[in-house]
Amino acid sequence: MPMSDIEIAQQAELWPIAKVADTLGITDDELIPYGRHMAKVDVTRLADRPRKAKVVLVTAINPTPAGEGKTTTSVGLADALRRMGKSSVLALREPSLGPVFGIKGGAAGGGYAQVVPMENINLHFTGDFHAIGAANNLLAAMLDNHIKQGNELGIDPRRITWKRVVDMNDRQLRSIVCGLGGVANGMPREDGFDITVASEVMACFCLATSIRDLKERLGRIVVGYTYDRAPVTAHDLHAEGAMAALLKDAISPNLVQTLEHTPALVHGGPFANIAHGCNSVMATDVAAKLGDYVVTEAGFGADLGAEKFCDIKCRMSGIRPDACVVVATVRALKHNGGVPKAALSEENLEALEAGMPNLLRHVGNMRDVFGLPVVVAINAFPTDTPAELALVERRCQELGVNVALSEVWAKGGEGGLALAEEVVRLCEQPSELRFAYELGGIRESVEAIARRVYHADGADFTPAAAKQVAQLEEQGFTNMPVCMAKTQYSFTDDAKRLGAPEHFRITVRSVKVAAGAGFIVALTGNIMTMPGLPRHPAAESIDVTDDGRITGLF
Amino acid sequence: MPMSDIEIAQQAELWPIAKVADTLGITDDELIPYGRHMAKVDVTRLADRPRKAKVVLVTAINPTPAGEGKTTTSVGLADALRRMGKSSVLALREPSLGPVFGIKGGAAGGGYAQVVPMENINLHFTGDFHAIGAANNLLAAMLDNHIKQGNELGIDPRRITWKRVVDMNDRQLRSIVCGLGGVANGMPREDGFDITVASEVMACFCLATSIRDLKERLGRIVVGYTYDRAPVTAHDLHAEGAMAALLKDAISPNLVQTLEHTPALVHGGPFANIAHGCNSVMATDVAAKLGDYVVTEAGFGADLGAEKFCDIKCRMSGIRPDACVVVATVRALKHNGGVPKAALSEENLEALEAGMPNLLRHVGNMRDVFGLPVVVAINAFPTDTPAELALVERRCQELGVNVALSEVWAKGGEGGLALAEEVVRLCEQPSELRFAYELGGIRESVEAIARRVYHADGADFTPAAAKQVAQLEEQGFTNMPVCMAKTQYSFTDDAKRLGAPEHFRITVRSVKVAAGAGFIVALTGNIMTMPGLPRHPAAESIDVTDDGRITGLF
Repeated sequence: MPMSDIEIAQQAELWPIAKVADTLGITDDELIPYGRHMAKVDVTRLADRPRKAKVVLVTAINPTPAGEGKTTTSVGLADALRRMGKSSVLALREPSLGPVFGIKGGAAGGGYAQVVPMENINLHFTGDFHAIGAANNLLAAMLDNHIKQGNELGIDPRRITWKRVVDMNDRQLRSIVCGLGGVANGMPREDGFDITVASEVMACFCLATSIRDLKERLGRIVVGYTYDRAPVTAHDLHAEGAMAALLKDAISPNLVQTLEHTPALVHGGPFANIAHGCNSVMATDVAAKLGDYVVTEAGFGADLGAEKFCDIKCRMSGIRPDACVVVATVRALKHNGGVPKAALSEENLEALEAGMPNLLRHVGNMRDVFGLPVVVAINAFPTDTPAELALVERRCQELGVNVALSEVWAKGGEGGLALAEEVVRLCEQPSELRFAYELGGIRESVEAIARRVYHADGADFTPAAAKQVAQLEEQGFTNMPVCMAKTQYSFTDDAKRLGAPEHFRITVRSVKVAAGAGFIVALTGNIMTMPGLPRHPAAESIDVTDDGRITGLF
Repeated sequence: MPMSDIEIAQQAELWPIAKVADTLGITDDELIPYGRHMAKVDVTRLADRPRKAKVVLVTAINPTPAGEGKTTTSVGLADALRRMGKSSVLALREPSLGPVFGIKGGAAGGGYAQVVPMENINLHFTGDFHAIGAANNLLAAMLDNHIKQGNELGIDPRRITWKRVVDMNDRQLRSIVCGLGGVANGMPREDGFDITVASEVMACFCLATSIRDLKERLGRIVVGYTYDRAPVTAHDLHAEGAMAALLKDAISPNLVQTLEHTPALVHGGPFANIAHGCNSVMATDVAAKLGDYVVTEAGFGADLGAEKFCDIKCRMSGIRPDACVVVATVRALKHNGGVPKAALSEENLEALEAGMPNLLRHVGNMRDVFGLPVVVAINAFPTDTPAELALVERRCQELGVNVALSEVWAKGGEGGLALAEEVVRLCEQPSELRFAYELGGIRESVEAIARRVYHADGADFTPAAAKQVAQLEEQGFTNMPVCMAKTQYSFTDDAKRLGAPEHFRITVRSVKVAAGAGFIVALTGNIMTMPGLPRHPAAESIDVTDDGRITGLF
């Protein structure tokens, strides 16, 4: 039996983190250790340095149950670049405890392309998500306390938009009534919890460029509305100072290593759904100042994650990608083409052909809409046949895009050399990032994303959403990027429509402002911000031995 | 203006934590750094070493709004012992975020008797409380998920006793209805949140002697009852492995230092109310193996904290105190004697005399019930007059107990030398800890604590509590110590009755089992397990500068 991810990770000989830091020129003084193999990087020294690295964005087709291996490919690509003698640095998202105990398992790569120590990264890591949850919940407690203590601001308990969070898949908390039990316990009202990664504090954290910027963002967060419908902010509650104090250590990027000792900055992890789905700006920024190549990823498929990476993160931070990797697997493409999960191991050129349009549309978007040089990475499985791989290659080359087989899961960096060589070649090409839309009206931005990125015929707003747009624009929330909250499974707002659908429209059902993050969230359909556990949660199999070794973590 | 606690702490020159560890013979290999000035101690090497240290328990009179300074006295005593050439080690509780943002401020000592880095210790520290909260909430999510997924165990949603927790003063969550919104969201039921320190996971964590022992305790936790009234445990839900995995790093004690570089193991912090209120057994155990003198504290006044330290923690762990310090202030004694807060700075021998019985009863209990040599430490204030100090001394000496003036707040260890000398003298005296009761029936144990420690005429059980006792004993929960949940302000169960009341009875209103911790909780009156924020929370004044310095933390 092949070794599991955690077995491979636990057998690895890790370098002391100071040695990893040293490869980037980070001194002991600039390193704040968390255990022997994790550290935070104190980035004050770097504040005025220029970003010198080539930035490689790794994105993917629409996710399927068969998986694509975006993180695994990112890790293997960085290792391969390092084998080529390049100073490569990863910038990745931190995993949430929710999926770890739910269905997905860990999120630190797989096989021989992992970041380690994988148990720590997947469990509490350096405590960033706990700090974000505490800051979020402090604001909630101060908000309800304000109402209880006389409600000087006149906050309408029915119009509170700020939710508490927990870093756990806990559907029981999705919809609650709180403040019960009489006057001493507060004001009864409808409420609900989100998972921590869905908190706007997480989005602020990931877009902030300094403690001061973070504090200003936190102060701008809108937590609800008064009886007169005026927005109430965290600043109105005098909360942003204490919230920022809770986050002051967390905001420094975390340094770990791959199995091959490539440095990895793993920091922040907002939902790619109601938020922008990328690791922190500070991590990408530091990586771009220290390395020659930064490999970073965006959440979900390219229609959500890469679009937001470009239109939100890059627009706000000035970070500019030099090349884009679109990851797919033959299995996922066949699944996209209608093959049931059980039959994915058999060659099926017809299904593969049927599944290709999804990949090709993402590739076309990244190149033609966003203006980036693109390579397709096929994350190899032993069941892939030469005929299948040839078909993918042929179709992509019809678009002028090369395909590289990535065998990093089985071989580590060695298996990513073909991909790395193509990435280096693309990074030498002149390119300039374009945005899918210019800042302006909310409806215009959504329309542009729908038409240009999703290839829809347009976007409709329900009457309720149209009213919200009018209110937000009246309150001055204009000239902000739009963060689309849409199913990750389809270009459309219907999770069932796979492939590359045409002749459809997007319906925006609700619009709200994330004033701290600095974007407008446009929600199409019901977006789940608090997942549930499956019938048999992964937690049931996780254990720890008497001498402290974690088992059963995937 | 004198410097605030945080200003004193931030001006201190801290030793690198490895240097502090070295004074105890802890090697770099055994140290897991968290930043530059905090570390966890990997204690596996010490497992079979004998405990060699003298253990000094610091407790106090019943708390008053004037404060007593138990932690400050503990820190200063340890510093003073070190100045005398003794190898002293502190074993203290970790602060909770709730009081930090609420009314109390930090909890790491004060003035020149502090443990540092105080901001980190008071905020996230090494993440232990977050880990405990996550383990608690994972169990809750798995419990509700079990019901949602078919409820194979037949758990009665009306008889769930396991609550979720948050490390925040958040009264809005005391009483809620969760699982609303239809079938997909779970089963609607009444519920509520506790603050993290009130979680039974915290109590298990603080009483565990190893990862294996912790996992067994977690597995025994009773989360509710079936429709047939049979107890349901965490083990029935297959939750204890993943819970222990979340706690595997947290369980190692945290090493920090005082302002004078005395090593301090600060680890765990259960409520002294519905739990036993002491730092972890592992911290005290390690301290007793490494140092010559361990200074440790128990929560609230001696009637609650010291009683549980002896009857629960010492009974379970084999730890034995050699001497006991009872802390009081002249101000708090005068307050106990009826002086309002505004007039506490004036000499008032009559009020002081009236307040003395509270102190004298605690002193008598520690000596006569628990069999320990006792010294009274008067935590000095500039407003104390010689006549007042002489009166305290005279009254204590009538009981054969010495009084030492402790000026550690103003002078650090230098101000604790008199106390330290008396402590060393007492530790040389032969003594043997006695328990207030022997294990047996629940009612008998409560009766013994009420009569012997509280000096009540006896204990009554409401019909509901009597029924719960019968049920628990029928379920086999016998021969466990009893954890009294009683107001901390009085020997009685009425917070208003100060001093040393006589001719009263205690009423137990509810009894429940903490099967993981291994004790029975007997609740008298309403015990608050989720505090609220005051009108102007301390959080409103807390801030962080652009370069990351915390301000406004007391």
